Order: sequence, then structure tokens, then C-alpha cells
Amino acid sequence: MGESMNKNEAELVTTMSPSPARAVAPPMRASQRAPARVSGRVYGIERRLLKFLLRILGNPPVAFVLWNGDQIAASTGTPLMRVLIHDRAALFDVVRNPDLHFGDLYSQGRIEVEGSLLELMEIINRSVAAACARGGLGARLMSPRQRARPNTLRGSRDNIHQHYDIGNEFYRLWLDERMLYTCAYFSTPTDTLEQAQIAKMDHVCRKLQLKPGEQVAEAGCGWGALALHMARDYGVKVKAYNVSHQQILYARERARAEGLDGRVEFVEDDYRTIDGRFDAFVSVGMLEHVGVENYRGLGDVIRRVLKDTGRGLIHTIGRNRVQPMNAWIEKRIFPGAYPPTLGEMMAIFEPHEFSVLDVENLRLHYARTLEHWLWRFEKSAERIQAMFDENFVRAWRLYLAGSCAAFTTSDLQLFQVLFAPRNNNDLAWTREHLYATGAGGN
Amino acid sequence: MGESMNKNEAELVTTMSPSPARAVAPPMRASQRAPARVSGRVYGIERRLLKFLLRILGNPPVAFVLWNGDQIAASTGTPLMRVLIHDRAALFDVVRNPDLHFGDLYSQGRIEVEGSLLELMEIINRSVAAACARGGLGARLMSPRQRARPNTLRGSRDNIHQHYDIGNEFYRLWLDERMLYTCAYFSTPTDTLEQAQIAKMDHVCRKLQLKPGEQVAEAGCGWGALALHMARDYGVKVKAYNVSHQQILYARERARAEGLDGRVEFVEDDYRTIDGRFDAFVSVGMLEHVGVENYRGLGDVIRRVLKDTGRGLIHTIGRNRVQPMNAWIEKRIFPGAYPPTLGEMMAIFEPHEFSVLDVENLRLHYARTLEHWLWRFEKSAERIQAMFDENFVRAWRLYLAGSCAAFTTSDLQLFQVLFAPRNNNDLAWTREHLYATGAGGN
Repeated sequence: MGESMNKNEAELVTTMSPSPARAVAPPMRASQRAPARVSGRVYGIERRLLKFLLRILGNPPVAFVLWNGDQIAASTGTPLMRVLIHDRAALFDVVRNPDLHFGDLYSQGRIEVEGSLLELMEIINRSVAAACARGGLGARLMSPRQRARPNTLRGSRDNIHQHYDIGNEFYRLWLDERMLYTCAYFSTPTDTLEQAQIAKMDHVCRKLQLKPGEQVAEAGCGWGALALHMARDYGVKVKAYNVSHQQILYARERARAEGLDGRVEFVEDDYRTIDGRFDAFVSVGMLEHVGVENYRGLGDVIRRVLKDTGRGLIHTIGRNRVQPMNAWIEKRIFPGAYPPTLGEMMAIFEPHEFSVLDVENLRLHYARTLEHWLWRFEKSAERIQAMFDENFVRAWRLYLAGSCAAFTTSDLQLFQVLFAPRNNNDLAWTREHLYATGAGGN
Repeated sequence: MGESMNKNEAELVTTMSPSPARAVAPPMRASQRAPARVSGRVYGIERRLLKFLLRILGNPPVAFVLWNGDQIAASTGTPLMRVLIHDRAALFDVVRNPDLHFGDLYSQGRIEVEGSLLELMEIINRSVAAACARGGLGARLMSPRQRARPNTLRGSRDNIHQHYDIGNEFYRLWLDERMLYTCAYFSTPTDTLEQAQIAKMDHVCRKLQLKPGEQVAEAGCGWGALALHMARDYGVKVKAYNVSHQQILYARERARAEGLDGRVEFVEDDYRTIDGRFDAFVSVGMLEHVGVENYRGLGDVIRRVLKDTGRGLIHTIGRNRVQPMNAWIEKRIFPGAYPPTLGEMMAIFEPHEFSVLDVENLRLHYARTLEHWLWRFEKSAERIQAMFDENFVRAWRLYLAGSCAAFTTSDLQLFQVLFAPRNNNDLAWTREHLYATGAGGN
């Protein structure tokens, strides 16, 4: 039990789903299945614990199967999915703090899921959301306030290092060829991931109305794809900041290889140190790592570096309502991360009276992006296991599937917020130019 | 002095400006001009008061001319505009509370403006904003907190009555032929007001993805143009609410005349009483009259009446930062009104976890709309004076010009916010359909 997909299973999944798969979790081998007693009953403390767990999850149509084959489900509805709990300590831990411990126990193979992990996460998200809407206790119990690690200059560097510096080779296995690790923009749902990442960059550049010769500051530039795209296709000069050492090295190498190193400067430093005066400020997928307590400071930075005739764009994962980060994701995957509401984001804009010009919610585009990543990830699961270990593969599978489910079920949003200094009247008259045929770079 | 435009002047303005005029304030006759002493100096208390006034306005390039011809201006820069103060009491009042008293004194003709009132308001807005950005005392002094009249059920009715029930004939003189009294959408800046108001309605309907047979609730329907447009061109059934008696009578008459009274029900009642279940909720230009303290309640109403598969749109004047309503406008023009920030608007959406899908800021479109209104208003100034009196004409001229200036200088924004219940995944994949040629009604 608990191995990652073997070769035959990987091939099976690949063959079944030429498009991004909805059900990419490896099917379990028949021999791995717990010998479920369909009418099995659980007595005593285990039964009470599982009934409690089901209740705080809003009684989803899910059955839990214990190590002895006993099964328990919510009294209403037929279970659509089965979750296997392999030992008593795992049961106690997951009930004590499901948000935090489900991830660890799943990673360790002490909890397993029959069928699609993505579907399970969607079912549970919907159930918890419905319970919250009914005013149940699920919400409070499911989300004990997890104190995010602080994003001081040093804290940010450590937090970013833990996620982004685990190896460019790893990310290359499942991101698009340009290595964009943020929500893509699918002009149509059937676009390839490569097409959609280019379309995302063009969408951002058009919103910013970049003109040849302009100066652009980028905060949190990842592996440099957007900075290079802006310089190459829009004729601007870019100063791009990132505290991830691995990413900056990679980005500089690409700039040299493309002969763009005279027009793109990659700076290994924090966004708080940006200096210069710019026509545009752009940040795609960094705000999640800034922390609400630093939004005012981020606004100060933008006001300091952006010309009065400038434009700014922040692309970030967000929320419909204030909610703590999932505890396991914050602990194991994204230390210090937090997706804000639009209301919380206003702490960046209001103190300097930036005008918010355009907000676009690309939630379903991120779900689609994650389907592509998850699909590619599963195809490379064996290689990834060889690079790290089995627990790593299971943890990242859960992170990708759980994130995808969070976007499809609206636990997470994706906001692109375009803004400008208040006195800038030199703005696009409408948004039609974003959709004009042949729009794009120069 | 202080008369509204005579016939010759009205014709002059009309002839000079075939497109909406930037300088629509009636030129003063030569005989009306104060005999300014260009190097005139003011001593004593008047001088100190005017210096203080200039300072809290951020020292704009404006000269004040007193009743005796003496003139005082900020020590920096050449005055671009001259403001005539005709008596000592007017001077004391305008200095004591410029936000509140400038409007009354201008309306009474005790303060006059040489040249374009619109340009004066723009110059002053920019000056005050720059002073605020420098951290000056202007902001605090210019905006003493004016307590808006409360928007209880009874209060709202009284507040609305005071503005919207002063006579349909009056509004017909300067609004477009369909009587839309909200920001238009100019596909290109040279569109006519009539074209732009139709385009606005189509823009709203496309954002809402209205489909034939759907049920729509409209909160604050004005004279009914949008409700009729939705029913006629998009095949939906509309229940439209408004507490203005005059407007509802007018709207019902139009529905009957168009044979749409079977598909549009105009209800003379408060938005809080909306009942039924709807596929779309729309409110254009009502939120300004709701009051922040009632946003949570408005969100409750929307959640109660909107299906899970529904969409909602709120179109409202807004702000970049929290700021009280201009005291004079609140007192004389729009009792109970308040333009919110995007952050404040989130009190409608967050408690019920509505997903904000799209925010568009149409600030410059409202400035253009107001230029059209002001232009038409000036063309009918004589008739309006005959319907009311000269003070009324001057007050409304100031209100229209001041509002236009507030949009061009970014003191005011115009937000169209599209949202949906969190679980609605049946949404437009991109916004491209808003800009497709031939998009529109059925």
C-alpha cells in the first residue's frame, strides 16, 4: 500500500485521458483494496470519532473504511467515495485536526483514497461550504487559526526558499516549457497549457498597455518567463525581483541565451528594495507570499516607484471571505502564504488613492491550469519519486489536487487587479483592445 | 449679475460646441465683470481669510476678486481663473466651510466664476488632492464629516423623493430620450449620448449573460429604461423596484405604451421588500443611496432572492478611499447619498461568499456623460429657470459641473461589479463575449 503509481498504472491513466484528466489519482490495485464489509458497523470510540468527523465535514457522501474493514458513512445519501484509514493513531490524528493532519497522513500512506483524490476534495469542500452556509460548526472546527510564518525580509527569504528552491529540474517535469507557476489564461478551455501561459502573459501586458521603451518593475518574477516575454514581445526594459536563488540563476541564464540580458535585469532581492521609476509595476503570483500586514508597505513601494502616468497589475490567489490558509498547505507546502480577499487587498491601494480600474476573476482558469499540472505530474510521478521519495509524491499530489478542488468549488479565487495612480487619465477607453484579433506584442 | 444665460448666450455656446462642451458655463457679459485691479491688494482680515482659504485648497492657481475689485491669489503661479466674491458675509461663510457654503453662495449668485465652472472645479480638485498627498491640512479642513440623512425605509423614501420627484419634465430636458440618469458607456468617445446609454444597457445585460425566459430583479429602476430594454431585447421577465412615485408612474406608462407590461412589473417599493427567486439581480445607480450601514442587509436581500445559478451586477459611483460625501451635495442635491470604496462594497459580498467576477471602472465615461448632460442643461437653462428659479439653475449647474470635475480628477469613480453565488460555475469562460461584434439582445 501507499506506493506511487507503477508504470502500468501511469500508462493506463495517460491512455484514458488525452486531455487534462479529472481523475488523475492513480487507481488502486485490486489487491490493495481493503476488504470492505459493505454493511460493516463500527462500535465504540472509533464510531463516535468518525461520526464527529463526518459532522464537522457537513456529512459528505463519503465512507470511511477502517483497518479492519469496518465502514462508516453519513446516515444520509449513498457514499460516492471511500477513504481508507489504516491505523488507530491516524484516525485519532485526523479527527483531532483534519485540516492539518489529513495531509500528513495521506502523504505517509496511512490514509488512502479510492478513486479520484480531486473528486474527494471537491465533495468535501462543497459539503463544508454548505455546512458553513447553514451556520454549522464545521467552519470553525475545520479551520483552527494557523499562524503563518512571518514575512519579514529574512522570513520571506526562508519561506520562499522552502518551496521554490527545491530544484528547477523538478518543476520542469510538470510546468509548461517556459516554467510559469501561476494561473494560465485559456482563451478557450481546450487550449494547451503552453498556449494558455503565453495568452496569460499577453493578457497581462495588454492590460498594462505596455509601450516600447517603457520601464517595467516586476515583483516576484519566478523563473523569468514574464520579464523575458515583456522585453522580447513588447519592447520594454524590465527590472525583475525575486528572493529565490535557484529561480534567479535560471532566469539570468535564459536572458543570456536569448540575448535579452541588456533589457532584463534580474535582481535577487526582496520587492521592498525595488528602486527606480517605472511606467508599469507588475506582480504575478507574489502577493500570496507578502502577508496582509505588509500590504500597506507594498502600496508604499508601488507609489514610490510608479510614475503618475503609470499602470500596475497584481495577479493573486484570493478568497471570497477572510479565512486562514489551510493549515497543512501553510506548514508543508507554502510557509507564510495567505490568499487575501479583495477587501484586504484594498490596504495596498486605498492609502495612496490608486484607482482600481479592472478586476478579473480567473478562478476556473486556475482549476484548468492545475488539471494540466496534475496530469503532467502524474506522468512523471516515478521520476519525481526517484528525485525525492514516495511521501513527497503523495504530498504534492494532494497539494495539486486539493488546490484544483479549491478553485472548482470556489474556496479559492484568482484576482487580476489593474490599477493606476489617481491622476492618470491616459488609460484605455474600454477593455475591447484586450480581445482584438491580432492584439499582442510588437 | 447672477442671471442664468440669456438667449443669445445660449445660442453662442450651442454654436461654438457641436460636441459636448468642456466650457459650458455661460460666459459673463463684459458689463458683469468686476473692474479688477490686476495689481490690487487686500489688507486686513479679508486678506488673511483668503490666504487661509487658498492654503486649505492647496494654493490653486485661482484669484479671488472682492466686491471692491481687490484681488488676491496664491503667491506661486499665475492665476488661471478668477472667482468673484460679492459681499463680506459671503467671504466669511465660504472660508468657514467651503465644502458646504460655496455651493449655496454660488447658487445665490453671491459668488461667481469667470469662465468655465467645470475647469475651476477641476483646478481646485487637483490642488486639494495634491495637498492631501503632501499630507497638508487641506483634506481634513475641506471635508468636515457631514452626517448623511439615514436611509431607513421612511428616510430613503424622503431622500429619494427630494431628488427624483422634482418633475419628469425637468429631467426630460437634459437626459437622453430614454431617461437614463446613470453613467453611459461610450464604445468610442464620440458616440452620442443616446448611443452610449443603449450601449451601457447592453454592456450590463451581456455581463449578466441574460437568457430568454429568465427572471430578473432590478433594485432602483429609475424611469424604467433598463427594465424595458432587458424585457424587450433580451426576452427576460423583470420585477423592478423604486421608491420614487414619479418615476414608477412614468415607467408603467412606458411599459403599457410598448406592450411590455406583461413582462415588466414596476413595484413602488423599497429594495428591502424584493421577493421571488431570480436568475439575475441588477442595480444601476442605487447603491449611492443605500448607505454603508445597510450593505450587509442588501447582501442578505440578494442572497435571499438570487438562485445559486444566478448572477448579479451593481453599478455605482465610488471612491478610491473612504471620504465623506461633499457636504453641499448631500444637503442640497442628494440627501442620504454616499459613494463607497470597493473595500466598503465588500460588506455586501463577503458575508455570503459571493464571488466577485469582474469589476470595471468607468470613471471617464461618467465624466463624458456629465459633459453631455451639462451641455443639454445649458441649452435648456431658460426653460428650467421658468420651471423653477434662477438659484435652482445655478445650483444644478454647479452640481453637474462639479460632478464632471470629480470624475475627471478621480475624486469619484464608477464601479460596475459583477458577482455570483460562490457555487455558480456556469459562467462565461472569458469576457470576450462583451466585445464580440453583433453581441447584444436577442
